[in-house]
Formats: sequence, structure tokens, C-alpha cells
Amino acid sequence: MKVLGIIVEYNPFHNGHFYHLEQAKKLINPDFTVAVMSGNFVQRGEPAILNKFSRAEIALKMGIDIVFELPFLYSIQDAGGFALGSIGTLNRTEVVTDIVFGSESSDVETLNVIADILHNQPEEYQKLLKIKLKEGYSFPNARKYALIDYCIKNSLLSEEKILIIEKSNDILGVEYLRALKEYNSKIIPHTIKRQGADYNEDKFKGKFSSATAIRKLWNEKKYDLIKDAVPDITFQKILEEEKNGRAPIFLEDMEISFISHLRTLDRDKLKKYYGIKEGLEQRIIEAAKHNYTIKGLFEDVKAKRFTYTRIKRSILNIYFGIEEKLITEANKKGPQYLRVLGFTEKGRKLLSIMKKKVKYPIITTPSNYISIIKKIERDTSNNKRMWNIDKKLYFEMIKYDFKATNVYSLYYKNKEYSTFENDMKFGALYLKGDNT
Amino acid sequence: MKVLGIIVEYNPFHNGHFYHLEQAKKLINPDFTVAVMSGNFVQRGEPAILNKFSRAEIALKMGIDIVFELPFLYSIQDAGGFALGSIGTLNRTEVVTDIVFGSESSDVETLNVIADILHNQPEEYQKLLKIKLKEGYSFPNARKYALIDYCIKNSLLSEEKILIIEKSNDILGVEYLRALKEYNSKIIPHTIKRQGADYNEDKFKGKFSSATAIRKLWNEKKYDLIKDAVPDITFQKILEEEKNGRAPIFLEDMEISFISHLRTLDRDKLKKYYGIKEGLEQRIIEAAKHNYTIKGLFEDVKAKRFTYTRIKRSILNIYFGIEEKLITEANKKGPQYLRVLGFTEKGRKLLSIMKKKVKYPIITTPSNYISIIKKIERDTSNNKRMWNIDKKLYFEMIKYDFKATNVYSLYYKNKEYSTFENDMKFGALYLKGDNT
Repeated sequence: MKVLGIIVEYNPFHNGHFYHLEQAKKLINPDFTVAVMSGNFVQRGEPAILNKFSRAEIALKMGIDIVFELPFLYSIQDAGGFALGSIGTLNRTEVVTDIVFGSESSDVETLNVIADILHNQPEEYQKLLKIKLKEGYSFPNARKYALIDYCIKNSLLSEEKILIIEKSNDILGVEYLRALKEYNSKIIPHTIKRQGADYNEDKFKGKFSSATAIRKLWNEKKYDLIKDAVPDITFQKILEEEKNGRAPIFLEDMEISFISHLRTLDRDKLKKYYGIKEGLEQRIIEAAKHNYTIKGLFEDVKAKRFTYTRIKRSILNIYFGIEEKLITEANKKGPQYLRVLGFTEKGRKLLSIMKKKVKYPIITTPSNYISIIKKIERDTSNNKRMWNIDKKLYFEMIKYDFKATNVYSLYYKNKEYSTFENDMKFGALYLKGDNT
Repeated sequence: MKVLGIIVEYNPFHNGHFYHLEQAKKLINPDFTVAVMSGNFVQRGEPAILNKFSRAEIALKMGIDIVFELPFLYSIQDAGGFALGSIGTLNRTEVVTDIVFGSESSDVETLNVIADILHNQPEEYQKLLKIKLKEGYSFPNARKYALIDYCIKNSLLSEEKILIIEKSNDILGVEYLRALKEYNSKIIPHTIKRQGADYNEDKFKGKFSSATAIRKLWNEKKYDLIKDAVPDITFQKILEEEKNGRAPIFLEDMEISFISHLRTLDRDKLKKYYGIKEGLEQRIIEAAKHNYTIKGLFEDVKAKRFTYTRIKRSILNIYFGIEEKLITEANKKGPQYLRVLGFTEKGRKLLSIMKKKVKYPIITTPSNYISIIKKIERDTSNNKRMWNIDKKLYFEMIKYDFKATNVYSLYYKNKEYSTFENDMKFGALYLKGDNT
């Protein structure tokens, strides 16, 4: 049995995503296809434009059999943490056999050489890294230059080849490969040459526009152009969710809340939050006093060593009070559950296979998140079944998913949907019928 | 030299306030009159409708010689903390000789008997209080019943008389008297019978409408009615500040930010904040998940032992991250500076007298808040002058004033005024000319 796993955000699902999905299926010819998807906040450090329930529904209709939610704690991390969460989820399904990811270079061999160094952390590499950090480079740059020096000294790769880790998909690719090694996973990685628009490209490029471009079109209410760039299923969902008053959601909707909160904080207290160091705390605190728009704030904080994405993620880490030590633990131990956002009739069969194998609970009804643990405790005390779960981390991790949803839903235009816990009300979507 | 001190919020300054001021002056016949006034947040746990700079200006024009800002940490506390802050400020001017406060009973003798018990905490009273708390009463009620029992047992007061502490002004009055004792102050307290509307009364009562009623009128844009209830100086300032886009400010303007923040918090982490106990933390967390309006949230949290005002103050304590231990220290040590919001030509003379006497710094230019401390450190090391300041508390206390202003100003409709630190830009207002 072959099960294809992919890692997605679908923010929103567009023609490029469909193309990628079809290519991946062609490459693997799987019996089942599952995806792990960011929830209501995505890796660029922003709320998703459509909520996770709608995005999962689209994914199911477009050919995914099960959509898992990437826990919030991983979804807003840098490439390393994002990979540990998403690969961890796919690995802990115990059924995924192959993953396929997009890559600018599509050069798995080179990516693997780098992933090996990052995984094994040879002493010589560590020394080089320390030197680069002492020279004042930011961590990503210090790492890059240390890798270059190490690979050249050891004749592993040419400088030209190693520079592929500057491309966004290849950075992720390296981290996926590294995460597979960390989990000691048997999953086989594959790449597909990245087609169409770069994901940061915000210009409309017709049929193959980027998600960034499509979000911009939605903001400008250019529905005709969106229609060209997304499958009809996405387009209908966009219209439906807008009519429901639950979309689009932009970072700007939250800006007054974010900046207001920052204005209550002290620089010193910021340092405990994940990724807030190297003077970033001071820049954020100062910028919050002088800006009322989140874009203005980003402009003020921006510096050579602080990319926009890092700043955006940092603001979310501060806003949700995510401490460094929690992320360290989450990254060390991996996802503690498999939250299912939706599944098809086919996916249901796979879920019943999974249920017998997994060592971390499958959550289809989040409101049962406490009773699930009680069952696991009974299993464990009866020696009935082995579970690997860290209970404390499980609760912390899932509560952050709930918090993320509760904050997100507060910004719906239709406040009817803001008066209950969406995660408690909406269990996994079961899509009946054949979708293939 | 007689200097009259009064404790005010002026939210906004209305005819009743003017009447009270005139009565107090008649009673004391002072050489100078000073006021300590809440800043941008008031004791009912809300933002002030007009910012502190405007309210100070009105006060100066209406006959106050110096307006001091009550530090934010005291302004949003219950009667006890509010009194420690305001009486502390007046006492530390070293020039105030008399204070006058409004009182429903106007019975200083009775108020003093109660204040004495609260100040001296006789053992028998403490035992009675413990019993009442064990019986499940909230602290204010337990205290009331313990006081009644104690006074009756010791034939100090009749039950009827002691019940005056149920009236809002008399509760404050007791705490003012108690605070005078705590500071070992020589200031002589006086009361004036409270006239006109109760401060919680929200109905328009013509010339003597309450501040609550006037704020309601402003919300309803009934300027004609406001004009009847406030001096022309207030009315003009109201029009001017609305035109400037800096008023009115309502709690509702901040509700999405407050509720959004609450949705990121854990019950357990709330307990460290001031006043969050007895299950209040759980009620707030739950209510935040199910409400998108602050009024709805208050309704959900409301219980016999949690008054609206307590809930409102608690939300502010949580929002600004004000910990129990900080308030304990602030209440023990009192205000660490005398922040001047404005002064008249006459007030200027009083300030120069004060400058030679005070043991805590007078701050007229808040942007100098660090250099002031450096000067004090030099004075101390030169044995030039004795200062009583607690440096750490000074910084914490004043930073909360700045934070309160920075949050407040973010909600101005005219965002021009939200892009700088208002406290850094606006020093004390000097009102030239004779205003008497």
C-alpha cells in the first residue's frame, strides 16, 4: 500500500496547487493521498484568508483523502520547526510511505547532503557556525556561510550548488529531509520542480497566479480574475464564505489588537518569547509606539537581520505568548496528536487502518480532547496498548490550536460565528461519495 | 498658608464638580487649590472619555491651580488602592493642608471610627473578618459584616450608622481617612454633603446630571443637553477634541482588543494578576470565548460576588499585565513621583515652594523621567538632599502611566495622534493669566 503525504497551506487552493497535487500523484501512484495543512494561521506569520475548515473542505474535494491540521505551534515557525511539525504528523500517521514536495532545484541529492550536515552536526561544522555567529551574522546567514565553508573544505558540494538553500522551497526541502532523519522515518522523499509563480510573487499571472496574488485580488474584490486562478470549488467556497461573513480575513483586521497589546509590554518581558532576541524586542516595542498599522510597524522593525516573515511570526509568538521553552519542547518531541480536519469516504478506510497503528491519538472530535487522554491512560494502565504521548505537551499544544481559532473567529464580520468555540463545534468534516 | 487638595476624575468636568469645588473653597478659604486626577483610565475600570491633558486643562480653567496625575496603578484600583494613591500624592506635595471630599452621610466622625478600625486592625476585628470570609462572603461584604459585628460588640456605632459604608462616596471617604492615617499625614479632612445625581445615575437630570449621564449623551450626540450640564469651558473642549479626532473614547472602542487578548490566555496564568481570584479567572476566560462585546462579557462574568466595576478593573489589570505583587508594593510604598499635568500662574508659585520640600520628584516634563533619577542619585551621593524614592518602583509605576497613554491614544479616530508617545510630547500645561 502506497500512501502519499504532502505538506500544504492552501491559502487558498489554486490551480498551481492542483497541478502540484496531480504531478505528485502521477509520480507516486498512491492508494491514498493525505495532506498536513496549516490551520488558521500560516507560516508567513499571518491569519489564513479562509478558515481551516473551509480550506480542508476544498482540499478534500480536490483530491486529498485526509486533511490533518498542523498544530499552530509549528505552523508559525521558521522552516525548521514547520518541517518538524509537518513531517512529524505525516510520520506519526504510521501509513504514509512517500512524500513529495516542490523544489526550485529539484536536486534531492544536494538537499540531502545539506540535511545530513544539519542533522549530524559534525564538530567541524559547529565550529564554523560559531565563528560566523561571532562575526555578527544572523543565524540563517551564519548557517549558510558555515555550510558553504564546510562543504567546500570537505569537497562535498560546490558553492554554487549549496546556494540553493537560499530559495524558499529548497530551504523547506532541506528541513523536510532533515526532519525525516530526526524522526528516523522510513518515508521516501521526492521532489517536483516548482512550476508557475513564486509564492511571494504578488502580481496576477493568469491561470498560474500565486496565493499571494490571489489574496491581493480578493482584497481588491476582483472576483473575475480570482475565478481564472483557482478551481471552481475554491471559487464557490470563496463566495460562500464571504457571504457567510467569515472571509476574507487579513492581518490588517487584527492590527489594532496586535499593536495595542504590544503597547502594554516591556522589552525585558519579550525576551522569553520564541525568536525574540538580538535586539528584535527593542525594535518591536519602539515601533509599536509609533505605528498604528501593522505594515508601518513592520517597516520600522525591518533590518538586515530581521526579515519581514520573521517579524510577522515574532508578532504572533508575542501575541499568543508562545515561550521559547515551549517551542524547544515541541520541536524535540514532535506533534502529540493527529488532528483530522476532514476526510473522504476513501480517507475513512485509511483512518481505520491508522487507528490500529498510531502511537499518538487521532482527533476527529476536538471537544473530546480530554476524554481521549483518559482512554489512553486506561490503555496504558491496562498494558493494553503502547502510546508515546507526552500528556502535558499534548494539552499545551492543542490548547494553542483552540486559542488560535478563538482569536481568528473573533475577526469574522458575521459575529454570530464569534460567539462559540469553533473547534468545539466543528468536528472533522466527512465528505461522502467518490471524489476521485 | 492653606492649600486645599481634592481628589477627582472629571470625566468630564460638569456643573456638579464646579459646585463641589466652590463649596470646598468656601469651606477652607485656601490660598491654593490642587487636585489629584485619574489619568487616561478611571476608577470605574474604563478609559476616560476625554484624555487627561484635556481634562487637566479644563480643571485649570475652572479654578484648580495644579493638577497632578494619579498614577495609573492606583487609578484603576478599588477604593483602598485609589485612596492610597491619591492621598499619597496630596500628602507628598508637602504643602496640602486640607482635603475636602464628597460624602453621602457627611458624617466624618462615623467615617473616622471605621477608618480607625481598618487602620489599626484590632485582633478581634481580624478574627471576625476571618469568620465572615470562611462563611463564603466576598471580601467587601465580609469586611462590612465584620465591621458591623465589631462596632456593635464594642458599642462603637449603631448598625444603621455603619451601613453608610455601602454608599460609594462614603466608602471612598473611609479609605481617604484610613490612607491619611497610613501616611501619618497632618492633612485635615473635611466632607461636603454630596449634592445632585449619584455618579452611577445615567439619566439626564438637567443642570446637575452625572458624568455617567453626560458620557451617555455624548455617545448619543445630544450636544444640546450636554451644554446644559457642563460649564462652557468643558463644552468647548468637548467640541474641540471631537473635531481633533481624540474624543470621545469609550470602553467599546477597545473591546475587540481586550477580548482578543483574553482569548490568548490560560486560566492559570491569570491568577498572578491583581484581583484575579475566587474563580474570577475561570469566568473571564469562558466569557471571552463566547462574547464579542465587552458588555456581553461583563454580563456573563457577573455574579453576586463580582461587581461590574470589579470585573471592569480586572479586565484592565489583565490587559496591562498588572501583577498582584506590584500592586502590593505600590500600596505599601505609595506614589513615587508627583506628575504635574498642568498648572496656572498661581500654581507655579506653589510648585516653587513645593520643589524645596518634596521627597519625591515633581515631574513636569515626563520625557526627563530618566534624567530626573540621575539628578536624585547625584543629590543622594553628595548628601545634598534626602529623597525617599524607590527607584525600581518609580520606573515601573511611571512606565505604566506611559503604557496607559500609549494604548489610549491608539484608539483616537485621528491616527496622527496615535503615532507618537503623547506622554513624551506633552509636558505639563502652563496656563498663563489669572483664572480666579
